[in-house]
Amino acid sequence: MSSSTLFSLTLCFLVLFNCCFAQIEQVTSRHEQQQARRRSSQHSECQLQRINALEPARRIKSEAGVTEIWDENDEQFECAGVAVIRHTIQKRGLLLPAYTNTPKLVYVEQGRGIQGAVFPGCPETFQSSGQFSRDGSQSSEDQHQKVRQVREGDVVALPSGVADWFYNNGDSPLVLVQLLDTINPANQLDQDFRNFFLAGNPQRELQSQRSSYQRDQFEEAFNIDTRLARSMRNEKDNRGIIVRAEHELQVVSPHQSREEEEREIEHRRGRGGRFNGIEETFCTARLKHNINDPERADFFNPRAGRLTSVNSLNLPILRSVQLSVERGVLYPNALMSPHWNMNAHSIIYITRGNGRIQIVGDNGQTIFDGEVREGQVVTAPQSFAVVKKAGSQGFEWVSFKTNDSAQVSQLAGRVSTIRGLPVEVVANSFQISREDARRLKNNREEVSVFSPSQSGRSDEIA
Amino acid sequence: MSSSTLFSLTLCFLVLFNCCFAQIEQVTSRHEQQQARRRSSQHSECQLQRINALEPARRIKSEAGVTEIWDENDEQFECAGVAVIRHTIQKRGLLLPAYTNTPKLVYVEQGRGIQGAVFPGCPETFQSSGQFSRDGSQSSEDQHQKVRQVREGDVVALPSGVADWFYNNGDSPLVLVQLLDTINPANQLDQDFRNFFLAGNPQRELQSQRSSYQRDQFEEAFNIDTRLARSMRNEKDNRGIIVRAEHELQVVSPHQSREEEEREIEHRRGRGGRFNGIEETFCTARLKHNINDPERADFFNPRAGRLTSVNSLNLPILRSVQLSVERGVLYPNALMSPHWNMNAHSIIYITRGNGRIQIVGDNGQTIFDGEVREGQVVTAPQSFAVVKKAGSQGFEWVSFKTNDSAQVSQLAGRVSTIRGLPVEVVANSFQISREDARRLKNNREEVSVFSPSQSGRSDEIA
Amino acid sequence: MSSSTLFSLTLCFLVLFNCCFAQIEQVTSRHEQQQARRRSSQHSECQLQRINALEPARRIKSEAGVTEIWDENDEQFECAGVAVIRHTIQKRGLLLPAYTNTPKLVYVEQGRGIQGAVFPGCPETFQSSGQFSRDGSQSSEDQHQKVRQVREGDVVALPSGVADWFYNNGDSPLVLVQLLDTINPANQLDQDFRNFFLAGNPQRELQSQRSSYQRDQFEEAFNIDTRLARSMRNEKDNRGIIVRAEHELQVVSPHQSREEEEREIEHRRGRGGRFNGIEETFCTARLKHNINDPERADFFNPRAGRLTSVNSLNLPILRSVQLSVERGVLYPNALMSPHWNMNAHSIIYITRGNGRIQIVGDNGQTIFDGEVREGQVVTAPQSFAVVKKAGSQGFEWVSFKTNDSAQVSQLAGRVSTIRGLPVEVVANSFQISREDARRLKNNREEVSVFSPSQSGRSDEIA
Repeated sequence: MSSSTLFSLTLCFLVLFNCCFAQIEQVTSRHEQQQARRRSSQHSECQLQRINALEPARRIKSEAGVTEIWDENDEQFECAGVAVIRHTIQKRGLLLPAYTNTPKLVYVEQGRGIQGAVFPGCPETFQSSGQFSRDGSQSSEDQHQKVRQVREGDVVALPSGVADWFYNNGDSPLVLVQLLDTINPANQLDQDFRNFFLAGNPQRELQSQRSSYQRDQFEEAFNIDTRLARSMRNEKDNRGIIVRAEHELQVVSPHQSREEEEREIEHRRGRGGRFNGIEETFCTARLKHNINDPERADFFNPRAGRLTSVNSLNLPILRSVQLSVERGVLYPNALMSPHWNMNAHSIIYITRGNGRIQIVGDNGQTIFDGEVREGQVVTAPQSFAVVKKAGSQGFEWVSFKTNDSAQVSQLAGRVSTIRGLPVEVVANSFQISREDARRLKNNREEVSVFSPSQSGRSDEIA
Repeated sequence: MSSSTLFSLTLCFLVLFNCCFAQIEQVTSRHEQQQARRRSSQHSECQLQRINALEPARRIKSEAGVTEIWDENDEQFECAGVAVIRHTIQKRGLLLPAYTNTPKLVYVEQGRGIQGAVFPGCPETFQSSGQFSRDGSQSSEDQHQKVRQVREGDVVALPSGVADWFYNNGDSPLVLVQLLDTINPANQLDQDFRNFFLAGNPQRELQSQRSSYQRDQFEEAFNIDTRLARSMRNEKDNRGIIVRAEHELQVVSPHQSREEEEREIEHRRGRGGRFNGIEETFCTARLKHNINDPERADFFNPRAGRLTSVNSLNLPILRSVQLSVERGVLYPNALMSPHWNMNAHSIIYITRGNGRIQIVGDNGQTIFDGEVREGQVVTAPQSFAVVKKAGSQGFEWVSFKTNDSAQVSQLAGRVSTIRGLPVEVVANSFQISREDARRLKNNREEVSVFSPSQSGRSDEIA
Repeated sequence: MSSSTLFSLTLCFLVLFNCCFAQIEQVTSRHEQQQARRRSSQHSECQLQRINALEPARRIKSEAGVTEIWDENDEQFECAGVAVIRHTIQKRGLLLPAYTNTPKLVYVEQGRGIQGAVFPGCPETFQSSGQFSRDGSQSSEDQHQKVRQVREGDVVALPSGVADWFYNNGDSPLVLVQLLDTINPANQLDQDFRNFFLAGNPQRELQSQRSSYQRDQFEEAFNIDTRLARSMRNEKDNRGIIVRAEHELQVVSPHQSREEEEREIEHRRGRGGRFNGIEETFCTARLKHNINDPERADFFNPRAGRLTSVNSLNLPILRSVQLSVERGVLYPNALMSPHWNMNAHSIIYITRGNGRIQIVGDNGQTIFDGEVREGQVVTAPQSFAVVKKAGSQGFEWVSFKTNDSAQVSQLAGRVSTIRGLPVEVVANSFQISREDARRLKNNREEVSVFSPSQSGRSDEIA
């Protein structure tokens, strides 16, 4: 085999493919977009005057699903340094194995499935017993790295460069919302995110350029014969990045009960002090955590709703990924304490219901004030003040936060800035009497999630 | 109450206000400045040819004090990625509660006062006994978070997003010099610093834009009545950001003796190994450290002066803030060893006396060489060589350093680069004899702070 | 002595000198280059379409050696944020003491010598017994900081701001390849690297500007007499930055056997857990590690070659420097597993032989595909797929990696992504049968370094 044939392998095997621009109408427009972005992409511009609640800007159809991408050139995402993608995977659909140049978080909005992530150097610890192959000739065991059952409410964290895949083995669509953190220090390239697919053939427009390389084989690296190499380079593959499994995927995966999972967390916590996400071996690291379970709520108010967080304390891999997630559920007309994010941006994805969000920047300018609904995204930049109020159907969201121990500071309620100030400071600051200052500090006894309109109770408490 | 009224609250309560441009003459000029800055603010430009000793560029008067702001577009500050602000708070003046998008250091240049910082989730651990209210009707206890006595020479460190306030309870003006570290990773916005005031009404120019929101009440979040809400939104408040307390602030605060403070440090050090500023709970973290006390000097030379540092080893919160401070006192005509900052920029604020500073960049260009006096700021960029020599009145300064364990490498003296080199390397490098090389290495026995003109003693030592 | 004379010292002593532009033909061109770079140097641009294997762009002759500098404006280096320099030091040549604004790695490509690094505050722990001075008059002891023997294959790591020097005490040229990491967080200046030489007089073009300062003496800081000060400011010194030692350097240094070195490593490892490069005192930190020794190989295949890494686990100082190195040796016609760098750029310097490298970016574009030979540099950006195949003479390189625990993910072989995937996922992804998928996973049993053309063995394994 000639040496030149070897070098075609990466191009065949690694069908490299920047998902964010895949299959858009004109290839030329891609360059224009990038140019425009590069020009303005000085580190983290946040001179926001007005932002919008956003729905996906692009939609890519695949054989067994749809990928929707938010406009990564929108200034709220440029300020936060993130990109947002949603995959809807049909029954028996497989999101092809791929890795990105950035860490990413995946929130399972709907459905159930299995997920695999391949960490280099880690052992193939899962064995599946013999299956009948397509031609019925052979049955043998397979070994591969750990796979995970995922279900609605799971957050899955993935470091940069780790290849992963999802398969929908449920009965309804599997909907995944992904956050890619392009400003993350783990991304040493520029702020464009890049998806590298290990298989598939997603981009027809770019094939002509590559065909010269694909003519050769790459048997050498994989030590395979020409026939197999040829069949892998299926240039007529137009299934996209979510493909339909020809036979039901028989991947074995033990089901873990929720109790087991919780015991595991406690065990780890007990095992002496704090986690260290950097040192921890990735081979045994837990990658997922369910934040939809009401029993796991960090704040719960039976008259208002609940808040649940996953951060590097309960999912240590987040320390290396430097991201965290908050799940919020507000009952009809309830509200969240006005607050600001102290050390993170908060990218809010609405999962259900409707509500109103207001975001106020420095100089008092309101950069957002409006109704939001299921499937929309709004970004609350670090330091900016945020208010959320549920509409008549209640209001649910997940907030991706660009810090693995994101902190908020609340303005009102039992745990709030106003409570931490001496009455005299409050009185002098607002030019009100001490009694009024005391009332301002103490009239709202709830924490984080507030029940609607308590005005009748004011006097009792004051 | 209608839902829309709720959303007015942040605007009323959180009078968001970018201090650095507050109350400047034309609002339009603000935009021009920002545009200009943004264009040139690629990450950390340090092509410095010549810098100046700077005094404040803007001055903002408040009811009970003055705020002065150095020009954050000056290239020395753009290179270092910092902003410098000085507050002069009159007797009984209160600097209103505010937070910034950056970590900050405060040096108490003069006077005494009390300071409070509100950390979210931390308990209200300070109780004050009943005080007579303004109308004499009621007396009750108040609980709030810890407050601190501050005095001349104290350094106070504050993470991004933590609201704090200062009150002058002394008899002379309380002068605070603040460094805001805009390039700090804890600031995820762009490199503009932003001050968010929780109360007050500092910016007349911007009110018209906000008035439509301020007409409504925000009773719901605070669960207060309309009367109180209305009185808080005092649009005629033109006291600025430093207000006069109507009654003397009666905030209780235990006085800690210096001995107690030192015991505390030793206790912490002894408690097993090193601090970890990240994990340490902010609720009990020490935020201040006095570096004016001669007994705490790290280097002391009775004929030359002293140097005192506060860094993450003696004030652990600095690990998360990633800043440190050096305090220098030179006696008349003494000098500091020529040196360079190995891993930090050094922003030098002159507190007293006069002296001469020379700063030399790569290619041997002198970017600064001149007399400096009280109240001026000069920046020594990382790696650049620095020399300081006191004038006839002596010379005192604080240097803010952009690293929590900033290190300098000295060129001359007992602890210096030249001492670390073998005589043969010195001789060959400078083309001098070995005896001369030995003399060059050994003739200055002092460390860091040198007494003036020892030329008479040369021969004795050599 | 007048105060103004003092301030001349830094300019005389610290002949500050930006090596990267030193002694180029026109001084004016320097500014043009910098302007061009600044304009395009938004953080880490990696829109690479095509890169080249590079040889040095500039060559600076010194009295006893040559310094060659790669074009730091080349887009592959701008993307990676690094600069590459090679010093060739003749027998008895001394590379003058200097420090940089960035961390750096030095690979000893050829020869042997001694190296010294001066850490501020560390004791002078090496003593040399009396030597005869040039005029024979005096003999006395010298004390200085630790020096190290270096030899071919050594990697030496240096934090930013640490001055170091090299001396060739062998019989053949000492060749050093340096990587300067300009994007490293330890560099707080902009992305230009700057070399600050403590002695010498390298840049004739810039002298006229400085002459006014150099006329005065700097006795005060060093407490030396006028004669010595004058002889140090040798304006006629045109030896450059690598000078010939007038007498053989008699620096004493204990020779450490390799066994000792290994025992030391094991001892440190055993001493309780992991290293912490930040806390570890620099005074006793090990700075070098040999990666040329076949016995230290991390991967070894007798039919293909070997790979050896030095990272923060076996050289803890790399944790603070945030860099690591991989050494590769491929036998004739062998190949490396196709792979991608998960969390680092890889700057590949070819040390011997010839081979072919292909680098494939996102969208499947081949940014590099060509023959490379000794002395060339090619950069593989993070995430991009890389293939290397040795030519008929074998192929050797060192890869500098911009992460202290750089990780690669291999595509083929026993430890590879394809092995980690379930057979069913492979089959469905490539639209091949399960048996073919099993063959693709299992046919290459080697790890990292593959023997050439095993196609004959395929069937046996499958």
